[in-house]
Amino acid sequence: MEPEEFRAAGHELIDWIADYRARVPQLPVQARVGPGEVAGKLPARAPEEAEPFRHVLADLEAIVVPGVTQVQHPRYFGWFPSNASLSAVLGDLAASGLGALGITWQSAPALTEVEEVMAEWLRELTGLPGSWRGVIQDTASSGCLVALLAARERVTDYSEARGGMQAEGAPLTVYTTEHAHSSIPKAAALAGYGKDNLRFVGVDPVTYAMRPEALASALEADVAAGRRPAAVVVNVGTTGTTAVDPLARIVPLARQYGMWVHVDAAMAGSALLLPEMRWLIDGVAGADSLAWNPHKWLGTVLDCSLLYVADPAHLIRVMSTNPSYLRSAVDGEVTQYKDWGIPLGRRFRALKLWFHLRLDGVEAIRARLRRDLDNARWLAEQVSSTPGWRVLAPVNLQTVVLRHEPAGVVSGTGAVLDADALNTHTLAWADSVNASGAALVTPSLLDGTWSVRVSIGAEPTGRQDVEELWTLLRQAAENRRLPARDERLTSAAR
Amino acid sequence: MEPEEFRAAGHELIDWIADYRARVPQLPVQARVGPGEVAGKLPARAPEEAEPFRHVLADLEAIVVPGVTQVQHPRYFGWFPSNASLSAVLGDLAASGLGALGITWQSAPALTEVEEVMAEWLRELTGLPGSWRGVIQDTASSGCLVALLAARERVTDYSEARGGMQAEGAPLTVYTTEHAHSSIPKAAALAGYGKDNLRFVGVDPVTYAMRPEALASALEADVAAGRRPAAVVVNVGTTGTTAVDPLARIVPLARQYGMWVHVDAAMAGSALLLPEMRWLIDGVAGADSLAWNPHKWLGTVLDCSLLYVADPAHLIRVMSTNPSYLRSAVDGEVTQYKDWGIPLGRRFRALKLWFHLRLDGVEAIRARLRRDLDNARWLAEQVSSTPGWRVLAPVNLQTVVLRHEPAGVVSGTGAVLDADALNTHTLAWADSVNASGAALVTPSLLDGTWSVRVSIGAEPTGRQDVEELWTLLRQAAENRRLPARDERLTSAAR
Repeated sequence: MEPEEFRAAGHELIDWIADYRARVPQLPVQARVGPGEVAGKLPARAPEEAEPFRHVLADLEAIVVPGVTQVQHPRYFGWFPSNASLSAVLGDLAASGLGALGITWQSAPALTEVEEVMAEWLRELTGLPGSWRGVIQDTASSGCLVALLAARERVTDYSEARGGMQAEGAPLTVYTTEHAHSSIPKAAALAGYGKDNLRFVGVDPVTYAMRPEALASALEADVAAGRRPAAVVVNVGTTGTTAVDPLARIVPLARQYGMWVHVDAAMAGSALLLPEMRWLIDGVAGADSLAWNPHKWLGTVLDCSLLYVADPAHLIRVMSTNPSYLRSAVDGEVTQYKDWGIPLGRRFRALKLWFHLRLDGVEAIRARLRRDLDNARWLAEQVSSTPGWRVLAPVNLQTVVLRHEPAGVVSGTGAVLDADALNTHTLAWADSVNASGAALVTPSLLDGTWSVRVSIGAEPTGRQDVEELWTLLRQAAENRRLPARDERLTSAAR
Repeated sequence: MEPEEFRAAGHELIDWIADYRARVPQLPVQARVGPGEVAGKLPARAPEEAEPFRHVLADLEAIVVPGVTQVQHPRYFGWFPSNASLSAVLGDLAASGLGALGITWQSAPALTEVEEVMAEWLRELTGLPGSWRGVIQDTASSGCLVALLAARERVTDYSEARGGMQAEGAPLTVYTTEHAHSSIPKAAALAGYGKDNLRFVGVDPVTYAMRPEALASALEADVAAGRRPAAVVVNVGTTGTTAVDPLARIVPLARQYGMWVHVDAAMAGSALLLPEMRWLIDGVAGADSLAWNPHKWLGTVLDCSLLYVADPAHLIRVMSTNPSYLRSAVDGEVTQYKDWGIPLGRRFRALKLWFHLRLDGVEAIRARLRRDLDNARWLAEQVSSTPGWRVLAPVNLQTVVLRHEPAGVVSGTGAVLDADALNTHTLAWADSVNASGAALVTPSLLDGTWSVRVSIGAEPTGRQDVEELWTLLRQAAENRRLPARDERLTSAAR
């Protein structure tokens, strides 16, 4: 495509996006297509001849928009926020338009150096230690894998340079809690530790945070059995309940055993822009790495995950390669981000952070984050003060985990009389909210029973949206007939 | 940022990109900034207040453009092509503007299903087996790591579910050649095989392709020593010389030993759109996986790498997670791409493929690829027929590896009389070409001696650009005074 054709189509597409964003609030939040429906609308083969842009734009409208769940919607309360701030979208467009090639510093010096500066801006904004340095990864899944690889290589004195994990004698062990994000056990598995050597340390029954005493016991038992503790993944804001493991109490234990401390703050990292929320990472100066995702609550459009490390030299030793065709005269003077993660080729992701922070300004972003925290507290108060409703976990961030517990299923003292009925009820009313198209919430298992996560923080979500949600939730749950015994478990078994 | 502000700024940015692409040919190809120069122009802290868009655009122009090597330039002949076709840029903009969240099928059905269809379109276009299925990864580096993890878990009967790599008895071994991309040994190291268990199988001295006899010997020796062959990475188009390992002869050996066969066709994959180039992957039906990058020669803007696998069920078993908050009623009926790679959160990368193929049309893309192959053959002919110049490797694709070998340094019979002088000469004239800003080529070591890679295939590169490059190369090399002995090795030691 020539620049002039791009100009014409680009203007159309910009207008389309602006219009789309303006009308998102009128769209159903949850996608209403069935399996195979989107694929069925596409031809089986690529077109031999170029198609006019208007055909492609028409399909974007007719096929794609109804085919995605609208996470930019003001009443999207599902999973976690996944904001794509329009300022960041501009930065991402600039990156694609430039088409820079991020493989070495030499291939795109600005790609490297803007990334270094953005990592530093956000380090300062989040109050991480001044000696730490950051890099952008695609996701916190990759960030955690990278951290567990770095941990593995530190404790084995670089086994990758010899026989690899398979030549290790005593098994290396990794610690986290069962509330860790699914990417944590996945990273431990992929890094070769083995499921048998991953420990889910016990949590506090009220806060769902790791109990340091339980960690200490697990470490003692493993060492006594001849195993070598390698890493602990500290959850700061779990996916299920935004539980916060006590980093400051975990760090001394980890130090005692020479373990790597990785902090998974994928969601909570955005909150660190607020000084009053820095308690989340008390003790971080003793950790080794921390990952958080500006592409979640902050709004820097997928994919953009920051990984900070206390000791970049170690990470580079684990990850570096140096083929002749990538060498240059300035090696040693510059940062080579190819050696800070898995991919060689890297997008200019720093541009979207740069555009986002400059075009929105940090003060406005902080105000939005505080708005969401206030809204979560407001909702939790409504839930707590309404008979038959319960908040199931501390509201540390912007997510409220709740349940409607009708009489007959839950006793007056809170004992669950019929767990199957409660599960069926919860899944049914959550489904009815989602199917309505008016809002989206996420069912989630907590202590083996279904609950509902309301994760507040879509960019356009105001107090009124949360009020409307609360009305919706009450209508859906309170007006629902409790299931007869034979109706149960059908949806609970999903 | 509100939609109306986005609309105004977006139109400005679209115009800026169209203008930028139109004037790329007038820019110096290689970035001319020194280490720290870009970072030095940025403030130390993020702005508290929003800045006007014109400030950001002005910095994009003044700081970023001179800070990147212009890989979209018609006389960019470095590394490998990294085209960002403007049709694909539109698709990428649509993806960012939509801001869809790719974590499960449910979160964005169209994101999953358009990706499935695009993988199928490109499978058919490249002649891969009809039973194979594909997924988009960020890069072939990740694709190869994923393949080597899948290989590890197949040969160990899912060690990740038990003690991991460290509980394995006999060491697992991996085979490739020393011409494999740097991401291959990196993936083997990260996957925990260990450097001691990675074999660089001998290559043919003329074609630089793996010698099946050498692979057979290495396998025999390893098995005799009690090791377990796990995987072979077959290079189809190496980075150094675009050498093509003989897949059809390697597959039967691999089958005999129960090994995983991964085909790294990161660059060469685009050529498979041309039926006459399918010889590159003769024998592929017996392989297990293949990765190639539409973000290279094809032009689907970084990052977009296709990974195809013959047995998706195995890959899913290695990679899958199933936390309650990601379950839905349609699980089992749909593809969950989160279980086909490392990240959970995924961009809507399929849109840029969709836009690219539709807006450009496959026939025009094929014509461009053929143009580049013709240009490479033309250049190779000029080099071969010019005294003092030599083509150093077969021109299998669009890359010509060449050297100027002046009398006095190389004898009339081709013997190198003074290797240091030849290296100094090669690096010096290549540097002078690159420093001129008129073109960019990549110095590369071949058999321990520096050569120059001319990789043709930037989207706007025509025959005239290649002719001008050839004139430049001759001027730079032939008019250069050969170094005195004491000047040598300074730049060769880079």
